[in-house]
Amino acid sequence: MRVLILGGDGYLGWPTAMHFSQRNHEVFLVDNYLRRRAHRENGTDSLTPVGEGLSERVGAWREVSGQDIPFVEGDLCDPGVVERIFREFAPEAIVHYGEMPSAPYSMVSQKHAVFTQYNNVIGTLNVLFAMRDLAPDSHMVKLGTMGEYGTPNIQIEEGFIEIEHKGRKDVLPYPKQPGSFYHASKVHDSVNIQLACKIWGLRATDLNQGIVYGIATDETKLDERLLTRFDYDEIFGTTLNRFCLQAVIGHPLTVYGAGGQTRGFLNIVDTLRCVELAATNPPSAAEYRVFNQFTEDFTVLGLAELVARSGKEVGLNVSIEHVDNPRIEAEEHYYRATNTHLLDLGLQPHYLSETLIESMFDTIGRYRDRVVLEHIMPRTRWRPRDEAPADASHL
Amino acid sequence: MRVLILGGDGYLGWPTAMHFSQRNHEVFLVDNYLRRRAHRENGTDSLTPVGEGLSERVGAWREVSGQDIPFVEGDLCDPGVVERIFREFAPEAIVHYGEMPSAPYSMVSQKHAVFTQYNNVIGTLNVLFAMRDLAPDSHMVKLGTMGEYGTPNIQIEEGFIEIEHKGRKDVLPYPKQPGSFYHASKVHDSVNIQLACKIWGLRATDLNQGIVYGIATDETKLDERLLTRFDYDEIFGTTLNRFCLQAVIGHPLTVYGAGGQTRGFLNIVDTLRCVELAATNPPSAAEYRVFNQFTEDFTVLGLAELVARSGKEVGLNVSIEHVDNPRIEAEEHYYRATNTHLLDLGLQPHYLSETLIESMFDTIGRYRDRVVLEHIMPRTRWRPRDEAPADASHL
Repeated sequence: MRVLILGGDGYLGWPTAMHFSQRNHEVFLVDNYLRRRAHRENGTDSLTPVGEGLSERVGAWREVSGQDIPFVEGDLCDPGVVERIFREFAPEAIVHYGEMPSAPYSMVSQKHAVFTQYNNVIGTLNVLFAMRDLAPDSHMVKLGTMGEYGTPNIQIEEGFIEIEHKGRKDVLPYPKQPGSFYHASKVHDSVNIQLACKIWGLRATDLNQGIVYGIATDETKLDERLLTRFDYDEIFGTTLNRFCLQAVIGHPLTVYGAGGQTRGFLNIVDTLRCVELAATNPPSAAEYRVFNQFTEDFTVLGLAELVARSGKEVGLNVSIEHVDNPRIEAEEHYYRATNTHLLDLGLQPHYLSETLIESMFDTIGRYRDRVVLEHIMPRTRWRPRDEAPADASHL
Repeated sequence: MRVLILGGDGYLGWPTAMHFSQRNHEVFLVDNYLRRRAHRENGTDSLTPVGEGLSERVGAWREVSGQDIPFVEGDLCDPGVVERIFREFAPEAIVHYGEMPSAPYSMVSQKHAVFTQYNNVIGTLNVLFAMRDLAPDSHMVKLGTMGEYGTPNIQIEEGFIEIEHKGRKDVLPYPKQPGSFYHASKVHDSVNIQLACKIWGLRATDLNQGIVYGIATDETKLDERLLTRFDYDEIFGTTLNRFCLQAVIGHPLTVYGAGGQTRGFLNIVDTLRCVELAATNPPSAAEYRVFNQFTEDFTVLGLAELVARSGKEVGLNVSIEHVDNPRIEAEEHYYRATNTHLLDLGLQPHYLSETLIESMFDTIGRYRDRVVLEHIMPRTRWRPRDEAPADASHL
C-alpha cells in the first residue's frame, strides 16, 4: 500500500513511518519542521537527540533496514505543496499527523490560538480537496483526540450516539466539548472531514486518540539513531512521559490541581498498530467513521502514584506535588469511554506496567544531561493571571 | 448602550445599524466591503442600489434622522484593526454579522472554502481575544445559522439537548451536521465562542438564524437612499427573496430538486427585533446561550407555491420549475425545531403573508431593470460534475 504520512518527523509520525516501511508498504513523508522551529524559538528541545531532520533519519533507516523512505519538507497550508505530493505519490492511505499538536501552545496568546486553528483547519481542508481531485478512492486516517469530547456526564461513544428525544430516534455526531483552542481545532477538522465524506464520497477514519506514552517501538530499538523525539517541556510534554522524566531527574511529579482528571492512555506501540489496523481496513466510499484510540484510563494522580511506586522499586526518590492547575477543567468528574472498534479489528493492547515505566526510566537516564529544567513547570495559563476570575462552574 | 456592529454594510448589518441608532443607542460600524468586492468580481450586484459605501449611507441617515453613525473600513482578520476599534469605541454589545455569509460561495473551489473558513473562524477568534483583553464585560451577539443543525430525525433544540444514555443524563451541545463549508464555519465559531465563555468568563448569545426575507424595515422606508441590499444571484441570493424576484421578471421559480426541504424563515424586521432583544437582555458572565431565530417553517416547494399564488393575485404569470439540486441534501425529511427563547423575551413575529410578498413585488418592480439574468440559475455544485457519484444516503 502507498502510505503518505503527514507530519512524518513527529513523535508518532517517524515511528509510524518505520513501522509501515518495515512491513513493506511504500511510504512517503511530509513535514514542515514546525515543532523543531517552535522548540528552537522556546529554547527547548526533545530529550532524545533527533538529528538535524528527516534526511539524517531516513539515511539511518536505509542503513538499518535497506528500505527507502522519500520525503519532502513542505507546508500543508500551501495547496500547491499538497497537490504536487498527491500527483507524485498517488497515496492510497493518508496518515494525517500533520498538525500543531499542543493544547498549551494554543493557549499562549491570540497569535498562538489563531495559528493553531489556521494551521490545522486549513491544512486538513487542503488535503481533503486534494483527495477529491486527485485520489478520490484514497483513505484518510486522521489523528484526532479524545479531548474533543471533554468530560460529559454520560458514557463517551465512538463518534456517534443514538439519541431518543420526544419519542423519536436518530444516530447523531457525539456532542463535543473541547477544552482548548487546539482541541477545538480537532473538532473543526472532524466536522469538515465528515462533510467531505458525505458530499464527495471520500473515505475517512477519525482516530480520537488518548494520551500516548513510551519511547520505544520495535523499529526505534534497532539503532539509537532511530529514536523518536521525547518532549517533556510544559508546551509539548504530556502527562506520563513528563512524570517519568521528573522521577529520573529528582523533580517532584507535577500533578495539575487535585489530579482527579481521568483520561484515556495508550502505549506508542499500540498507536502504530491502531493506525495500521485502520489503514489496512478502509471504510467504504462516503463513510466517515470514528475510533476511540486508547487502551486504559487513569486519573492523573493515579498515574503519578504508579510512577512514584515504580521509581521506588529502582531506588529513585520520588515525590508528588500538586501545582495550581493552569487549565480550566473539572478536577473530579465522571469518565467512561467506549473503545471497542479497534479491539474488534484485532488490536492486542500493551497495558501500562511497572516494567514499561522502568524501561522508560532507563532511556531517559541515558539522556538526563540534556534536560532543560526551567521549562518543566507550567507557565501557560488558560486564564491569564491579570484577568478577573469568572464563575464557569455551571458549564 | 454602545453597540458595535461587525458587517455593518450588509443586508442585515445596515438595517440593524439604523434600528439601534433610531432607538438612541450609540452605534459604530465595521465592514471590509467583502460582499461588494465579491459581487464586482462576479459581475453581479444588489438589485437595490446601495451607493458607493458606508460614507454615503451614513450621510443619508444623518440627514434623515439627525443621528451620527461612525464607521471604519477594516478587516476582522487583522487583530490590530479589532484592537483599535475596541480601544476607541469600548463596546458594550458586539453584534457580529461580519462573516462571509454564503453556502454556495464556500463550495465554488478549494480557494473559496479555505477563504470562508479562514475569514469566519479567525475573525471571530480575534474578536473573542479583544473582548477578553479590552471589554471583558461586553456581550457578543453572534449570527449563526439554523443550518448548523442540518436535518436530524429528532426535534432540534436551542443549542443544547438533555441526553439520557445508559442510565445517566447530561445536557450537552446539540449535535451539528452542517451541509457546506460555510455552515461548517459557523459550527466552528460556535465551538470557539462557547470555549471562550467557559475559560474567560465572556458573555455570548449565538443566534441560529433561519432564512431571512424582506426588504423593508421601519428605517429603510424613511428614504430611498436608506434601502438595504437585495441579492438574488446564485451565490448570495436566498430562497424566498429569489422567488419574489423571479415572479416579478417572469422567470420560472427555481425549486432545487423535489423542494421538500423544510427550513425556518423570518422577516427582516424580526431579525432586527431579535438582535435587539438579545443585546438588551445580556447573559451572565461565562454564559454561552443559543437562541433559534426563526418564526415559521416552510418547505421550499410550499414557498414557491405561495409566491405563485400571490403573483397570480396581482396579475403576474408565475411558473415553478424543479431544477437539478446543486446541493447534497435530503429533499424529504423530518423537521421540527424549537424557537421559544426569543418569544419568551417578547418577540412578536411578523408572519409571512401575501400582503408582504406583494409589497416585495412592488419594491422589486421598481428596480427590475437592474436584474442581471444570467446569474440567477445555480451553477455552483456541491459535487462537481466531473466527479464520480458516490452513495451518501446512509449518512
